[in-house]
Amino acid sequence: MSTGGDIVLGIDPGTAVTGYGVVRRGARGAPELIECGVIRTRAEQPLACRLRDIHEGVVELITRHAPATLAVEDVFYARNVRTTVVLGHARGVILLAGEMAGVKIVEFAPAVIKKSIVGRGAATKEQVQFMVAQLLRLKTPPQPADAADGVAAALCALLTPQLPTIASLSLKLRRS
Amino acid sequence: MSTGGDIVLGIDPGTAVTGYGVVRRGARGAPELIECGVIRTRAEQPLACRLRDIHEGVVELITRHAPATLAVEDVFYARNVRTTVVLGHARGVILLAGEMAGVKIVEFAPAVIKKSIVGRGAATKEQVQFMVAQLLRLKTPPQPADAADGVAAALCALLTPQLPTIASLSLKLRRS
Repeated sequence: MSTGGDIVLGIDPGTAVTGYGVVRRGARGAPELIECGVIRTRAEQPLACRLRDIHEGVVELITRHAPATLAVEDVFYARNVRTTVVLGHARGVILLAGEMAGVKIVEFAPAVIKKSIVGRGAATKEQVQFMVAQLLRLKTPPQPADAADGVAAALCALLTPQLPTIASLSLKLRRS
Repeated sequence: MSTGGDIVLGIDPGTAVTGYGVVRRGARGAPELIECGVIRTRAEQPLACRLRDIHEGVVELITRHAPATLAVEDVFYARNVRTTVVLGHARGVILLAGEMAGVKIVEFAPAVIKKSIVGRGAATKEQVQFMVAQLLRLKTPPQPADAADGVAAALCALLTPQLPTIASLSLKLRRS
């Protein structure tokens, strides 16, 4: 579980707009918003160039905030397979940024994030935005919606008790 | 069109095995094989870790051979959408390696590569391997098959006359 000043960077991947949110657990245990926003890429650029912009944007966020955890929303399986595959390219360069920085990476399916924030895996975008604002005590939800989705991914990692992994369990066993 | 010592690095992306081939046009205009092989990743590793291995492998090849062109096979749309999306992640970090090195990137659909090498878009794997060996005057096709697919992508870029791009045309117009 995240404690103290542990910072989580949440990412909602997209080739055109990648949303992000940086949160941490505050002094009294309540989640706090540090920053949120979007990384935009230009549609007229080749895919490789847009991927570089996304990668460098995430590298810059990791350098600036030194998060303990990178929470990345899993691929939403769109009707158009081509769209989903291009989204996979964007996720690839985002995961790479986290891995190269040695940050712990967690991945959540869209329904898991909604369930964690709203209590229902089938929650609407508006419900997620409303609850993100409530949880962070903001007057209005983060804008644009993609930024709110990035914040939701980060909150999901912050609020979800982390189950021990097999690796950490075997470490404990070896130590005991 | 590739001329003189222009080197092409061809890549057949895969999360488990990424094949590559490095070719150039030799003194008499015939294509020559410089190197081929595969980048293997371990199935028990998390996806982010495997993506880093693929990315670093391609960066290392670019550093060693300084290719003018990076030819990357396009996604093969597998029946299993999940497989195709994970492949998209691998392509993402490969394209990123080329873009960061400032290498010209060309992408070819699997059928285009087969058509270019064998003359038929529906050619079998064995036919591609046979023609790769013929074109490069090798006694046996490159092994394993993924390496041959990387070489085929590189040969496709080397043998396909490059049509002028709109950017190069407008440059010429401005110069004239």
